[in-house]
Amino acid sequence: MAAVVSAGVFIAFEGGEGAGKSTQVSRLGEWLTGRGRAVRTTREPGAPTAVGPALRSLVLDPATTGLAPRAEALIYAADRAQHVHEVVRPALAAGEVVITDRYVDSSLAYQGAGREIAVEEVAGISRWATGGLRPDLTVLLDLPPEVGLARARGRAAADRLEGEPVQFHRRVRATFLALADAEPQRYLVLDGTRPVDELAGTVRQRVAELVGEPA
Amino acid sequence: MAAVVSAGVFIAFEGGEGAGKSTQVSRLGEWLTGRGRAVRTTREPGAPTAVGPALRSLVLDPATTGLAPRAEALIYAADRAQHVHEVVRPALAAGEVVITDRYVDSSLAYQGAGREIAVEEVAGISRWATGGLRPDLTVLLDLPPEVGLARARGRAAADRLEGEPVQFHRRVRATFLALADAEPQRYLVLDGTRPVDELAGTVRQRVAELVGEPA
Repeated sequence: MAAVVSAGVFIAFEGGEGAGKSTQVSRLGEWLTGRGRAVRTTREPGAPTAVGPALRSLVLDPATTGLAPRAEALIYAADRAQHVHEVVRPALAAGEVVITDRYVDSSLAYQGAGREIAVEEVAGISRWATGGLRPDLTVLLDLPPEVGLARARGRAAADRLEGEPVQFHRRVRATFLALADAEPQRYLVLDGTRPVDELAGTVRQRVAELVGEPA
Repeated sequence: MAAVVSAGVFIAFEGGEGAGKSTQVSRLGEWLTGRGRAVRTTREPGAPTAVGPALRSLVLDPATTGLAPRAEALIYAADRAQHVHEVVRPALAAGEVVITDRYVDSSLAYQGAGREIAVEEVAGISRWATGGLRPDLTVLLDLPPEVGLARARGRAAADRLEGEPVQFHRRVRATFLALADAEPQRYLVLDGTRPVDELAGTVRQRVAELVGEPA
């Protein structure tokens, strides 16, 4: 009898600026690696693909001014198409656990709601870009924009998104929450103001079921 | 009574490598300028917009390897969205004659047929990118790929598209011709092996009707 080949598992972390996504991606990756799982941690926009860094700098550089909303949405989609093609699908095919810091929901929230293009249109572009690949689990780290922006501003120069008014970030938050509400079985929504260790523990419990590891 | 404001006119030149598009764009632009018309000559990919040059170098640089077909299509679409938003629509709104060296048909021919993504899918992305803006006239400079490639190789280093096998360029040519066949009233198909002056004269005649100038 052939050995059972583990299927890959795809997990996305979503949330506003300063929500703690990259910390939780690292923590989850370390835990799974410690359990002997092959793990790929990655991010959007700007994973180190053939075009990722160049596209990331185009959309996040405050020097990029006058960018058309549709051009911006298409640049994010191009970055995602390459990321899925070059990183995510090959890793999943190899049975790895892929953990991404941002995915489709970020485009829906930031371009769709934030930039005022219809969410359905951005969703259609992303669906085409990814060939319909969806995460098995999306962890939404939810917190008030004021809290997240204060954290983000404390650690680095403001990029284009962090320079938007707080009202923009409130629409982003509301869109993330609406996406999670529409598909509760595929989302884990957490209060991003809780302590890092507590959040990491809750994420581990949920992921443990998904990947068949004891928490 | 208010003066009649001239409506802008949008003209695209299409064709394979080395078909003579940029020469004919210049010739037509000079003729119209000489008639006192406000003319904007431009091109895709990589018009000098906020993101055009960077996107152009990403897709045409031979150093860009392993580019996913959908990522490539989305980068061209992003370039086009910005071009239409920042250059083409404002010039048309100001009543100018806009003459572009390549537009949507190039994406349909090169990505759709050439890269083997469905033409309808590329058309849908381009329609969204441009908000449905179509040329009033498309001039197709048709010629055998062998002729065009020999011309193009004579003048510059091969870019990524020029490095494709001749079979690729045959599919590109066939797609351009099929697009023109489907909408004969909006296309002027010319034999790109004819002398430059003869081609320029034929283009002038057709454009003269369109812009209301004597040829």
